[in-house]
Amino acid sequence: MEQVKAILFDVFGTVVDWRGSIIREVSAVGEKLGISGNWGRFADRWRDGYYTGTQDVVNGKREWVSADTLHLERLEILKPEFGLDGLNEEETIQLNKAWHRLDPWPDSVQGLTRLKQKYIIGSLSNGNIGLLVNMAKHAGLPWDIVLSGENFRSYKPDASVYLGAVETLGLKPHEVMIAAAHITDLQNAKKNGLSTAFIVRPDEFADGEYKPDLEADENVDVNASDLLNLAEQLRA
Amino acid sequence: MEQVKAILFDVFGTVVDWRGSIIREVSAVGEKLGISGNWGRFADRWRDGYYTGTQDVVNGKREWVSADTLHLERLEILKPEFGLDGLNEEETIQLNKAWHRLDPWPDSVQGLTRLKQKYIIGSLSNGNIGLLVNMAKHAGLPWDIVLSGENFRSYKPDASVYLGAVETLGLKPHEVMIAAAHITDLQNAKKNGLSTAFIVRPDEFADGEYKPDLEADENVDVNASDLLNLAEQLRA
Repeated sequence: MEQVKAILFDVFGTVVDWRGSIIREVSAVGEKLGISGNWGRFADRWRDGYYTGTQDVVNGKREWVSADTLHLERLEILKPEFGLDGLNEEETIQLNKAWHRLDPWPDSVQGLTRLKQKYIIGSLSNGNIGLLVNMAKHAGLPWDIVLSGENFRSYKPDASVYLGAVETLGLKPHEVMIAAAHITDLQNAKKNGLSTAFIVRPDEFADGEYKPDLEADENVDVNASDLLNLAEQLRA
Repeated sequence: MEQVKAILFDVFGTVVDWRGSIIREVSAVGEKLGISGNWGRFADRWRDGYYTGTQDVVNGKREWVSADTLHLERLEILKPEFGLDGLNEEETIQLNKAWHRLDPWPDSVQGLTRLKQKYIIGSLSNGNIGLLVNMAKHAGLPWDIVLSGENFRSYKPDASVYLGAVETLGLKPHEVMIAAAHITDLQNAKKNGLSTAFIVRPDEFADGEYKPDLEADENVDVNASDLLNLAEQLRA
């Protein structure tokens, strides 16, 4: 681990609590409209649309489009199902930008701030660059560099995203560490020669239908309980 | 100016003193080799190579290559002319990375830090992303976003760079301000609908053969004496 020079973070789930934040935003909208709903399920369905869209790009089923566009497409589908038809275009776009206003986990800002003293720290997210920049301003995430699938017109887990990030930084694969709460992300990073850190986020999916990864893959280089613990283990 | 949401900075000359920094680095190398030289002229010739290379890309004469590559190409040409043949490959690459270690003007870090409280602040440079990230770490530049011609596989003054930056941020052209010490950069930004700020940098070329722009073009939106003054005028 002595050779690691940059740590790139998965963002949704690893650095920010996307699900809790989306529930908070849509609950407020629902309250204004005078409706209630299973907003946890709404958040999961919204996330599904984003995930499916990114994988369609990776699999060559469609041209690259931004996460903002994928979010908006799925939101339009979900509106009637969840009683949100009352939202006009401006309000819909405003709700779509909830993904720009996700809140960090309690340890994220302090952990990143410590890691930044020793390493280049950045995002490596499927969220688009504009979304990630707005989120960093909202949440106080002190990135040195915002990297996104958008830089490479692809999405994780495509190898071009991991290796493109390495090349962009002018580093060797093992000098770049991917930190993520999702084992598949780390497996794909490792397959491309990058270093890896698992950050357990037991609350990512709360009481929803999805389950978090609770244990590190045996090939992961560092196994951390949160970002402060990652900083601790890396002596940052 | 009330509608400006992001300020993107030209970097070489506007935020950092590239010429003084290159002279400092190459002087140290020369001292080690026991040679002296006109290092101001060396810096200007090196910069010429970078500039010519970027414009060859803009004019379609060659495929996009990074500033690091353009710098290295020209350094290899300059080595015999300036008595630097003695540098081996590793030392040459080390000197080439002097462009990653440029020092800020005295007002830059404080000015950017103030502007960051009110605006998204970023680079919009022809330097490659890795170079700009290393420079930000070296110089303490608190960018929210590192944007480069590399993002768009082109170079300023190509319209794709200015408009690509606007689109990446999800903003309208007039909501993005380009801040630069070079009138042509601002003229090209304005031609594409962006807002502009001229930062006078009388010392950029010191006593070399090139002359700085000392007066703002009449179409420039803000005319500032340095980055603290820009912050002052924008009430940041």
